[in-house]
Amino acid sequence: MCRDWGAVFGVADAADLFEHFERGTYRGREYRYLPDARHGVERGTAILGSAVVRGFPSIPRVLVLDPGIVEFFDGPVTVEEKLNGYNVRVADVRPDEWDDTDRDDPVGPLAFTRSGRVCRYTTEIVREQCDLGAFFADHPDLMVCGELVGPENPYTAHDYDDVDSVAFRVFDLRERATGDPLPVDERRALCETYGFEQVRSFGTDDPRAAVDAVADAIDELDWRGREGVVLASADGERRLKYTTSAVHRSDLAHAFALPFDYGREFLFSRVIREVFQAVERDEAPAETRERARRLGESILLPAVETVRAVDRGEVVGEEHTVRGDPAVLDALLAQFRDQGLDVHVRADRREGDERAVEFVKRASATRDKTAHYLEGGTVDE
Amino acid sequence: MCRDWGAVFGVADAADLFEHFERGTYRGREYRYLPDARHGVERGTAILGSAVVRGFPSIPRVLVLDPGIVEFFDGPVTVEEKLNGYNVRVADVRPDEWDDTDRDDPVGPLAFTRSGRVCRYTTEIVREQCDLGAFFADHPDLMVCGELVGPENPYTAHDYDDVDSVAFRVFDLRERATGDPLPVDERRALCETYGFEQVRSFGTDDPRAAVDAVADAIDELDWRGREGVVLASADGERRLKYTTSAVHRSDLAHAFALPFDYGREFLFSRVIREVFQAVERDEAPAETRERARRLGESILLPAVETVRAVDRGEVVGEEHTVRGDPAVLDALLAQFRDQGLDVHVRADRREGDERAVEFVKRASATRDKTAHYLEGGTVDE
Repeated sequence: MCRDWGAVFGVADAADLFEHFERGTYRGREYRYLPDARHGVERGTAILGSAVVRGFPSIPRVLVLDPGIVEFFDGPVTVEEKLNGYNVRVADVRPDEWDDTDRDDPVGPLAFTRSGRVCRYTTEIVREQCDLGAFFADHPDLMVCGELVGPENPYTAHDYDDVDSVAFRVFDLRERATGDPLPVDERRALCETYGFEQVRSFGTDDPRAAVDAVADAIDELDWRGREGVVLASADGERRLKYTTSAVHRSDLAHAFALPFDYGREFLFSRVIREVFQAVERDEAPAETRERARRLGESILLPAVETVRAVDRGEVVGEEHTVRGDPAVLDALLAQFRDQGLDVHVRADRREGDERAVEFVKRASATRDKTAHYLEGGTVDE
Repeated sequence: MCRDWGAVFGVADAADLFEHFERGTYRGREYRYLPDARHGVERGTAILGSAVVRGFPSIPRVLVLDPGIVEFFDGPVTVEEKLNGYNVRVADVRPDEWDDTDRDDPVGPLAFTRSGRVCRYTTEIVREQCDLGAFFADHPDLMVCGELVGPENPYTAHDYDDVDSVAFRVFDLRERATGDPLPVDERRALCETYGFEQVRSFGTDDPRAAVDAVADAIDELDWRGREGVVLASADGERRLKYTTSAVHRSDLAHAFALPFDYGREFLFSRVIREVFQAVERDEAPAETRERARRLGESILLPAVETVRAVDRGEVVGEEHTVRGDPAVLDALLAQFRDQGLDVHVRADRREGDERAVEFVKRASATRDKTAHYLEGGTVDE
């Protein structure tokens, strides 16, 4: 670590910041990543030799569009779709940056997950789906930020009509060392130039008009079971998010399928989003009761199914399917096991040159606590 | 403090234990109480001069009756109704115990809330409703433990068919200094002797038979909107509780009427109780969906009402009505204000010799956060 990291990050106590970085390796090369935000440095920030790849910032949320949007923005607002997948940053670390990189064997563009880990599987997917070579030749200091979506992915699987397996949709271009975003128009034009598929734009409006534009977009997205929108100022600096009832319910259903692993942290926030949405939409009593019914079902039914599955002795956890180069899938499973995840492979088959693996990240808290209570264990509350 | 408190409580570090006691006063006399369990000493334990009044122990819960009851008990089990009110202990501190008590003006029996505070209002109620003089003359070292229930009470108001205003129902007699309970049969007989109204007993069975007895009792209690049951071993030492879907929903409705004050802590545990109850009852899909609908309504609808009330500028909080001696009600309101509660009196009227006060314990977190979000404030999640 030869750089003045305190100056790089604008942090007085660089030593304390570094204590919170963890070590990872990619093809034998070591890097560091920050799994939680510290000292104002974003979660997911990674250091590879002298190269810094900043984490993607957390985007604040409003619970009411009016006056939420008007209070937050003082100029034109672009409304873009927020997709339900996992957040990925792609950066091209050069051989002269990563100290131990062989100049004759550059690592090439790498994909970082939200927490800052390099994911070999995601790296392969983005390299296949985007012409990263041309982009990074022209813009070596940018990072490509996007969502990896689709039914076959190892983190957050969700169906999209136009995605059979997995797809990458760009929603940001940022300076990788500072995290500063490009202006929205410039970003969308650059993505167009390099042929990157990007998130849908619902257009640009002044804040007052954006309130109605977002309400209409949310109606359509909710009806189609999609997640929501992200709003951005023209310079890309200010962002705000707002989500559909459909994703509140699908988050809850996902969490309550594994209640003792995810239930507690998800529950309250989603309920509160539903409450304010019902109020702002000035729903009639019957509409709010219908919202309540669907809320209750998204919480209770998946949890009941899981308790029954544990009672039958079945494996419970997050189920995923991934498809691709056999060696890459091996690397992915090894990576998960290195992270301490208890991965159970349900099916593993060849489909032509590809391999398809169905696996479960076993949810030990849900399995153990559910079994304990089913055996008559007591609770102190 | 002249006693060897370490020996009294069986605690090595008596000094640390004492740091956690808080000071209270009753009619100018000082006492101490322990608002949270510490060093194995129950929450609510109070010290008045040399007298100790132990806190009421926390009772564990099972999420499934079978094998929960069979695993927990190894002899006869008495099933009694658990009422939805507030837990009160009544003890008679003698003049020679409370150092600064005037022997010519003994304080008489006092009622302690769950946290160990003497409540002047509750003290008056139990003195009116029970012949405490005869009881404590014969059993000075016992404490009478019961639930204060009914629609007009300042802590947990809930309707019971046979209670117009407020009533005291005894569920335990314990040694006040040690907390040791009397055997169940002896306790019920003593209550009978002194004319104390006590909680309903559903009878005594061996643990295997108690599973069905409790299931039947819960069906009836749920249908009547009541809380649940407490099971006890014959010696009174081992206790277990189990509750109805009706009270899970009413807890949630109460909590989500003030979501930012109570919502988070209540939500997860009640959902989990519903999940295991649905599984143990082996409900058909339509029954579980009905349970889910009612769960969703108990969460969402009260919260929507409260957000609307804040939007209209109304006072939100826990609403209570109390009735009684004007001076006692003044003391109650003063006691709440001393505790830092923001009490707003809605109505205050004479009804014959009595006074009836309707008041709200203002819920500042719910008011402030709701207003913040309605004004467009952001959330970081």
